[in-house]
Amino acid sequence: MSISTPISLSISALEDLYRTNQLTPKTVVNRIFEQIEQFDIKGTWTYLLSQNEVLAQAEKLEQLSTEKRATMPLWGIPFSVKDCIDIAATPTSAGCPDFAYQAQHTNPAIAKLLAAGAILIGKTNLDQFATGLVGIRTGYEVPHNAFVKDYIPGGSSSGSALSVARGLVSFSVGTDTGGSGRVPASLNNIVGLKPTRGLLSTSYMVDACRTLDCMSVFALTAEDALTVFDVAKGFDPEDPFSRRATPLPRPLDDYQKGQPFRFGIPAKQHLNFFGNSDVEAAFQQAVETVQGLGGECREISYAPFLEANDLLFKGPWVAERYLSVGKFVEEHPEAVLPITRDIILSAKQFLATETFAGLYAIAALKRKMESLWRDIDVFIVPTTGTAYRISEINENPLELNSNLGYYTNFVNLLDLTAIAVPNGFQSNGVPTGITMISQPFTERYLVKLGSMFHRCRVKKLGATPFVF
Amino acid sequence: MSISTPISLSISALEDLYRTNQLTPKTVVNRIFEQIEQFDIKGTWTYLLSQNEVLAQAEKLEQLSTEKRATMPLWGIPFSVKDCIDIAATPTSAGCPDFAYQAQHTNPAIAKLLAAGAILIGKTNLDQFATGLVGIRTGYEVPHNAFVKDYIPGGSSSGSALSVARGLVSFSVGTDTGGSGRVPASLNNIVGLKPTRGLLSTSYMVDACRTLDCMSVFALTAEDALTVFDVAKGFDPEDPFSRRATPLPRPLDDYQKGQPFRFGIPAKQHLNFFGNSDVEAAFQQAVETVQGLGGECREISYAPFLEANDLLFKGPWVAERYLSVGKFVEEHPEAVLPITRDIILSAKQFLATETFAGLYAIAALKRKMESLWRDIDVFIVPTTGTAYRISEINENPLELNSNLGYYTNFVNLLDLTAIAVPNGFQSNGVPTGITMISQPFTERYLVKLGSMFHRCRVKKLGATPFVF
Repeated sequence: MSISTPISLSISALEDLYRTNQLTPKTVVNRIFEQIEQFDIKGTWTYLLSQNEVLAQAEKLEQLSTEKRATMPLWGIPFSVKDCIDIAATPTSAGCPDFAYQAQHTNPAIAKLLAAGAILIGKTNLDQFATGLVGIRTGYEVPHNAFVKDYIPGGSSSGSALSVARGLVSFSVGTDTGGSGRVPASLNNIVGLKPTRGLLSTSYMVDACRTLDCMSVFALTAEDALTVFDVAKGFDPEDPFSRRATPLPRPLDDYQKGQPFRFGIPAKQHLNFFGNSDVEAAFQQAVETVQGLGGECREISYAPFLEANDLLFKGPWVAERYLSVGKFVEEHPEAVLPITRDIILSAKQFLATETFAGLYAIAALKRKMESLWRDIDVFIVPTTGTAYRISEINENPLELNSNLGYYTNFVNLLDLTAIAVPNGFQSNGVPTGITMISQPFTERYLVKLGSMFHRCRVKKLGATPFVF
Repeated sequence: MSISTPISLSISALEDLYRTNQLTPKTVVNRIFEQIEQFDIKGTWTYLLSQNEVLAQAEKLEQLSTEKRATMPLWGIPFSVKDCIDIAATPTSAGCPDFAYQAQHTNPAIAKLLAAGAILIGKTNLDQFATGLVGIRTGYEVPHNAFVKDYIPGGSSSGSALSVARGLVSFSVGTDTGGSGRVPASLNNIVGLKPTRGLLSTSYMVDACRTLDCMSVFALTAEDALTVFDVAKGFDPEDPFSRRATPLPRPLDDYQKGQPFRFGIPAKQHLNFFGNSDVEAAFQQAVETVQGLGGECREISYAPFLEANDLLFKGPWVAERYLSVGKFVEEHPEAVLPITRDIILSAKQFLATETFAGLYAIAALKRKMESLWRDIDVFIVPTTGTAYRISEINENPLELNSNLGYYTNFVNLLDLTAIAVPNGFQSNGVPTGITMISQPFTERYLVKLGSMFHRCRVKKLGATPFVF
């Protein structure tokens, strides 16, 4: 294969090319650095490894015996990592240049990916301290949407989503507290898997809200996201919030084509597209597509989800952000964007009584919701009700950021699992998406159903020239 | 059987007398009211039902068919309930007369006991708002120890323990947040079972710390406590903190006589008897007794448990007490004891950041402790390191109260299960006890082991004239 032929970085495609000796990891690495020259969106990376460093990783992999390679499920697969996650001997900035430190340890989920043969290309940009859903609240260069230049990329994992969408890596590891692993996936036509909290270790990262933070996977396809999840997951005894997967009261079998199932959507009263009729029409088409896959649609009250949203972003959980980086923000106010600084410092007003009241409210909502999962298998929402231009966000940053979380904020607070999948494009070319949400430990079900849906609705993989 | 013959109210003894028609519930009720005249310790009850009301309950039970009776595991068994738990149509005072309200609902665990044929005698005294381990911080008459009059009864469930110890009821339902179900059991020579949090519903009660509160059972024997627990337990969909029992990673089989097992005790460095050599000697004998039962003794670092103790009583959890009754305390400061008022109002100083920091610390301690349960089956501590005179508590109320929690405070915070069992008497006649602690869902194991231990160490049942 000539070095100038475009290469699809979807994991299965790449594995085929490796298996048939049409490519080697070093060739892929060289091609990626060419592509970064040509296709990179400025502001995607906070730290890019040198081509020589990455070639050295590839060289090591190529030296391994065939037997050893067979034990490495991500042999030669290039990836990026959101820059709030530690990788030893690289800097962690959390999107704030003055905050950057040289990491001493590697997050255990990332260590598993590296041990499985994945090739690290670099660390990716984000809303500073993972605070925001817009992707442009960074102390580094501001990135834009992978499709329409004056639109936001979405965040907080903006660089992760862009590196995948533009075909510069096969997958990226991001984080998701209130939607950071789903919003940028949706706005860039890729898949974002937000697994069950605690299945991927959150040791050695800059916490956003430590009781809620979750590692997430960005990939071109749902199957690729599952492949990565399966490698990265694992109980971490050093992480107090790590969990072992436990069986559900009523396990969901893997989704099979045509198998009947029940899906919920928010009742009309609360379905909000913020005036965007393109996204509204796309969501209506999504519902019909899911019905075509065997789904029986049930309208669900969205009020309890909105209650959880309010608790997350108006409630005491912001105090966790202060616990994580508050001291730095107090000591270096000029190093932090004013909007981020204000959010983090606002945490000090919240009381212990408000915190416990919030914990009671969430416990009550979770309990109330148990019956929901007897009525439906999966809850389907637009990932975002609309998309915004960078200029719109700059004019009205708080309200529009909050609008972007209308369908995402509640998920971790209620201990749910989600996959964001592409759902076509607005007439202006900006991608739209839906999110499928279910009980903890349903990753496999959501991936199967999400994949089937994705293939029905969109041909194009990310912003690459490749299609399903 | 003549009405003047003493009747042991232990459940198995009473059931035998019923089965052989030597007694009827009405006879028992009449006897109890006689005994209350003769043996009651003033301050045991906050609300005693009238003899006629109780006789009416007994009459109803006697009217039932033999078949119906056979389905009622507590048919004719008299009991009392700590007065922070609601029983419809009776007042709930939480130990504060001005706080008292007529309950509209019955706590579901109590409802199960009544449905199983148990006969309610009355509501029992407590440290106001279940805040304290002394049992004398009440707005009602102050009770004393069942054995030595100038000693405290222990609390907060003082009246519950006294009503059982003096043979006025077969069992009592109390609550336990930081030791309230164990300290008064120990100081009055009875058994206190503190089950896994969430197995007995905490709906319809005056919360102390809602995320930690647990219903507890006082009885003359461990077997009686288990009988009551088995009836009272059950998932309550209305209680967000209700839990379903789940199997342990390594289940503990029921303890069998002579079966080898491993027990931990606190390492010497932290074993604290506050100068009481009688309790120290009794604990040493307890260790030898447990070794005689097949136990291999291992000294365990007590430092993490002390860390949890500090978090509970110096940390943000007091804010939960404020959420429960803070408004009443603010509006009626004169209605509340100054010491209780000060504790509850101190809650307002705690911040959300301190609360999340506390939650992180507890998560880390729990994680650290997982390995402990691979090394030992059960952790054995003195229930209290010493006992205090009422006058001593009055002189130094905060420090001595805190000393009483040295071996009890951490249990609910770390989500553990415990049984307090008698361990003989000090030379001054005040009872001492030990507590056996293990992982959640180990009630049956702890009861079997606790029962075996109890029979080895003490003959006398409570302060009754009866023996094993």
